[in-house]
Amino acid sequence: MSGKPSQVEFSRENLENVLKRRFFFAPAFEIYGGVSGLYDYGPPGCAFQANIIDIWRKHFILEEDMLEVDTTMLTPYEVLKTSGHVDKFSDWMCRDLKTGEIFRADHLVEEVLESRLKGDKEARGLVDNANADAQEDADKKKRKKKVKEIKAVKLDDEVVQEYESVLAKIDGYSGEELGQLMVKYNIGNPVTGETLEAPKAFNLMFETAIGPSGQLKGYLRPETAQGQFLNFNKLYDFNNLKMPFASAAIGKSFRNEISPRAGLLRVREFLMAEIEHFVDPENKKHENFSEVADVKLRFLPRTVQQEGLTTPIETTIGEAVKTGLVDNETLGYFIARIYQFLMKIGVDPERLRFRQHLANEMAHYAADCWDAELHTSYGWIECVGCADRSAYDLTVHANKTKEKLVVRQKLDTPVTVTKYELDLEKKKFGPKFRKNAPLVEDWLLSRNQDELVKLKEELSSNGKITFKIPEIEDQIELDTTFITIEQRTKVEHVREYTPNVIEPSFGIGRIIYSIFEHRFWSRPEATERAVLSFPPIVAPTKVLLVPLSNNEDLQPIVKQISKTLRKEQIPFKVDDSGASIGKRYARNDELGTPFGITIDFESVKDGSVTLRERDSTKQVRGDVKDIIKAIREVTYNGVSWEEGTKNLTPFETKVDEE
Amino acid sequence: MSGKPSQVEFSRENLENVLKRRFFFAPAFEIYGGVSGLYDYGPPGCAFQANIIDIWRKHFILEEDMLEVDTTMLTPYEVLKTSGHVDKFSDWMCRDLKTGEIFRADHLVEEVLESRLKGDKEARGLVDNANADAQEDADKKKRKKKVKEIKAVKLDDEVVQEYESVLAKIDGYSGEELGQLMVKYNIGNPVTGETLEAPKAFNLMFETAIGPSGQLKGYLRPETAQGQFLNFNKLYDFNNLKMPFASAAIGKSFRNEISPRAGLLRVREFLMAEIEHFVDPENKKHENFSEVADVKLRFLPRTVQQEGLTTPIETTIGEAVKTGLVDNETLGYFIARIYQFLMKIGVDPERLRFRQHLANEMAHYAADCWDAELHTSYGWIECVGCADRSAYDLTVHANKTKEKLVVRQKLDTPVTVTKYELDLEKKKFGPKFRKNAPLVEDWLLSRNQDELVKLKEELSSNGKITFKIPEIEDQIELDTTFITIEQRTKVEHVREYTPNVIEPSFGIGRIIYSIFEHRFWSRPEATERAVLSFPPIVAPTKVLLVPLSNNEDLQPIVKQISKTLRKEQIPFKVDDSGASIGKRYARNDELGTPFGITIDFESVKDGSVTLRERDSTKQVRGDVKDIIKAIREVTYNGVSWEEGTKNLTPFETKVDEE
Repeated sequence: MSGKPSQVEFSRENLENVLKRRFFFAPAFEIYGGVSGLYDYGPPGCAFQANIIDIWRKHFILEEDMLEVDTTMLTPYEVLKTSGHVDKFSDWMCRDLKTGEIFRADHLVEEVLESRLKGDKEARGLVDNANADAQEDADKKKRKKKVKEIKAVKLDDEVVQEYESVLAKIDGYSGEELGQLMVKYNIGNPVTGETLEAPKAFNLMFETAIGPSGQLKGYLRPETAQGQFLNFNKLYDFNNLKMPFASAAIGKSFRNEISPRAGLLRVREFLMAEIEHFVDPENKKHENFSEVADVKLRFLPRTVQQEGLTTPIETTIGEAVKTGLVDNETLGYFIARIYQFLMKIGVDPERLRFRQHLANEMAHYAADCWDAELHTSYGWIECVGCADRSAYDLTVHANKTKEKLVVRQKLDTPVTVTKYELDLEKKKFGPKFRKNAPLVEDWLLSRNQDELVKLKEELSSNGKITFKIPEIEDQIELDTTFITIEQRTKVEHVREYTPNVIEPSFGIGRIIYSIFEHRFWSRPEATERAVLSFPPIVAPTKVLLVPLSNNEDLQPIVKQISKTLRKEQIPFKVDDSGASIGKRYARNDELGTPFGITIDFESVKDGSVTLRERDSTKQVRGDVKDIIKAIREVTYNGVSWEEGTKNLTPFETKVDEE
Repeated sequence: MSGKPSQVEFSRENLENVLKRRFFFAPAFEIYGGVSGLYDYGPPGCAFQANIIDIWRKHFILEEDMLEVDTTMLTPYEVLKTSGHVDKFSDWMCRDLKTGEIFRADHLVEEVLESRLKGDKEARGLVDNANADAQEDADKKKRKKKVKEIKAVKLDDEVVQEYESVLAKIDGYSGEELGQLMVKYNIGNPVTGETLEAPKAFNLMFETAIGPSGQLKGYLRPETAQGQFLNFNKLYDFNNLKMPFASAAIGKSFRNEISPRAGLLRVREFLMAEIEHFVDPENKKHENFSEVADVKLRFLPRTVQQEGLTTPIETTIGEAVKTGLVDNETLGYFIARIYQFLMKIGVDPERLRFRQHLANEMAHYAADCWDAELHTSYGWIECVGCADRSAYDLTVHANKTKEKLVVRQKLDTPVTVTKYELDLEKKKFGPKFRKNAPLVEDWLLSRNQDELVKLKEELSSNGKITFKIPEIEDQIELDTTFITIEQRTKVEHVREYTPNVIEPSFGIGRIIYSIFEHRFWSRPEATERAVLSFPPIVAPTKVLLVPLSNNEDLQPIVKQISKTLRKEQIPFKVDDSGASIGKRYARNDELGTPFGITIDFESVKDGSVTLRERDSTKQVRGDVKDIIKAIREVTYNGVSWEEGTKNLTPFETKVDEE
């Protein structure tokens, strides 16, 4: 498609009006007053989402031969306890005991200090009021602010410095630290000034009870990943025990946000598409890396961010892996494939960057992480995470369930391994420890080499070892009649290892909203006219059929073309409303439909119709069959408009587009 | 595809082994011991499901121009209170206070009485023990029975009759009635004999709290329908205010079963595809009905069932609507379209019937309902419901929210309407009723014509009316200074009505399992060999690529064909394991892959390959290009194997299939 012609400046308000008017999405339960953080997709939003998922499936699952699974959202407590989500998947909240209001602690501290700094600037005369107001206005639109007014109060210079230093580190504070900051800087309810309760961890998972007894506590999953990890053995088996391989899942996940805002960007129920690529930790090369090595990307590495800079480094993924900027080929391969996917579905390459996580912001399981961030009017938004989760998840689930989640690699050349081994005099454990015997045995058998060395030393010097196990109150003492620790040398024919996991994880709703912003513009006509320039392949509908009038003579042709389009499975709509052609096309441009077919009285005579291209409003004329062929070529086969319509006749519009 | 050749008798155990071995699906969280009623789909199950959804979307949404929406699963309490689910979406459970065991009351009464009747028959010598055992054995496989042993005890004749009469009506009892039956017939814990608590309603929705305060109670939706109803106005608007139209949604719903059993047929989290077709209650004709009028179906009407019979009536849908067997064209149209869909995806027409709901088993909102039932080894299973929900849902939500959910139809000929109207002397209500004033006003304004007639009579004869409102304790008294009721005649240009809803609702998991049973068979070879004969269009993978050996010379051809298949977006797998060709095809038959391409040393010389058809094991040979063309024709364009391969050379297999 051709680029966007000269246009009116972007306005989020205009975009939101179009998205609402055309029912791309809307607040869920709106007639009941709505529930914040929950949205429904209407027909065009739903079709757009389905097209993106379809392309995702082809781009990743089919092209890369991944194993797709569909696992449940309901998840028992124990699984998410083991994965760490019960303990760590939370935000800090504080409550106003008088009003019952609840604040997210980090957001509150951030907002209050920012507003004080603004007030200080105003008092120092560093910002003129008009500007400050405009900024404030923009901020209000950006999100519902808790701080309602800025007071022009001058602060001491060292206080300003302190505030700025706190704000720079705001993402890294613990709940206790946030509580201390609130006391130190006298931060309470921004409206009433009331002191708040100290921050408490609020777990972000939705809890429920499974079954009628209410005893089986469960959650709605916070990610699709766990279901994939738990099926590792079955997937590995399905893949004929070959490594590496990837599983993938597309489905809803849930996050009980404390106070959702920013529309589709922060919601409580969202569609994710996640890949878990299982790989040998000692060999993270990727066999198809050479195919993407030349893809040029913008990187914002950790080191650059730590200097307080935001200028990205532009280089090929091949270079990035070679220089160690990106850790390994597999991680690099997926970063490039993510880029290619985002380009297919209409992301503006100028508004995409890959940002490396800082050490303190990574999820509790991640060894390294690069986010594909898309720029929107809300700032840079994390839309795809690409994390190296190491062997964390498989290890914790295996430890908890005693089910091995490992790869057994047959070695071409057997290796000689010398290591410490611990033997139990098993029949003595039962009488001594009774029901605790398995616990003690498990503890002993799960010691690693370093620990065994220490235990052996203790056993040699004291003739016994003493230790404690969390589940058992008393200290445990064992002598050489119970255990033996020896160094042994063995020839091993099989290498057993826990795979590492590279995880590209897509937030589909965030990507969708970002594309709305990237593809939205307005024609600078007398009355502004909005257009959503989606690539044809993702457009909700591909063709609008527009009979020139409601004259009955045109009906058979509309029916005939409808039948052909249906048979060819090209999604289309008929607009036979009484509105003018111009109005109908304007409505259509707002829906992002790339093509329009106009049926007029010439069509009755010779079967020819006019084809209109959305972005350029160019028109060509030709036989229905050739027009449909052109639509198919441009939409599904990646052919350009110029190429696809070169055999059709350019057509000067007789209809006023206005 | 050709039909099934001579085969081994169906065995559910064999089928389940195949489905498990090939990871079609598996219990979720299996390494944690599993959670009953929750299943994960592995790669072939997931692809099969995705293909069925894809066909559903094309068959209904695209072909019928429906408006697809994607609404949230999290649903606030108020919505489901209004819809009736909070009060009525429940089963009756009773608890054994000693053991903590929980029983579903209707299932328990049913099982206990059935087992006593069996014991009676045995005591009377009416069944020989061997047969009884076999039956019992089959039953045990069918579901986990609570009753562990049958005692041969003779019952009085009238008791037998009573039991049989209770069993015939088992689906219609209230909780109280079930409790009375349990007392009367001394039904307790079937193992210990312990008396159970009286049946309590157990709501089948999963409850959760939305937001951090815990004050917004919510549920996981029990159906996708409510999200569609709540968006009625937006959808009607999107459809340019044209009627009739349909919305559709595909997504997960939830049901907290008391004790799930029967594998995929009764689960706690399941995929639904639901259509809500909004129609004028006074005109349920369907414009495309003639296109399906000749479709022949098997009906099991209410009248036949009431006579205790199960022989269906076979007739065309056209006849069924004409004779009033099926109420109207729209209901009939969807019944026929459901049939056509089920045929496309591989349901056995001999094992499909449409059963009309009995009056007492319909959902609380339904005016009429026909189920598409599929026959399986568990009996006849409801897989698609096709209900006329009348105007129930739109009406209750409109009443609750005061948001009109109606169609305004412009009348070509204005009509004169005479009706009673009630006027309020509004300014007098505030002082008299204070905060209750709106309640009283609402009550008065929502009276229908019959009620107004009565109130007018009361007002005329007594000079006042008295009434009660549930929310207000005291009786209310109003005289003619507060209200006037008059008959008035008006000319109306617009007819306002609440649409009726015809709802085809698909349980995708149940359909999937039924197709597994319908398409499973075993070749009667020396060692039985299982086959899943899916139609190519829904098969998880379409082609298996099988190089004759691991010889390096064959690799380039495998790569070349892979590349072509990937480009053509035909899902395929390569099996280059060392196993024999026969073994590889056997594995493949279990996965239901319809085509196999064998690459041998001839292929290196002349580029020809062999194509194998799964069901017949017939083979043809030809150029790769022609072979792929044949696959495409048979898989996606509905061409038969014979027709699609007529230009290829029949090939006598040189490889032993065993």
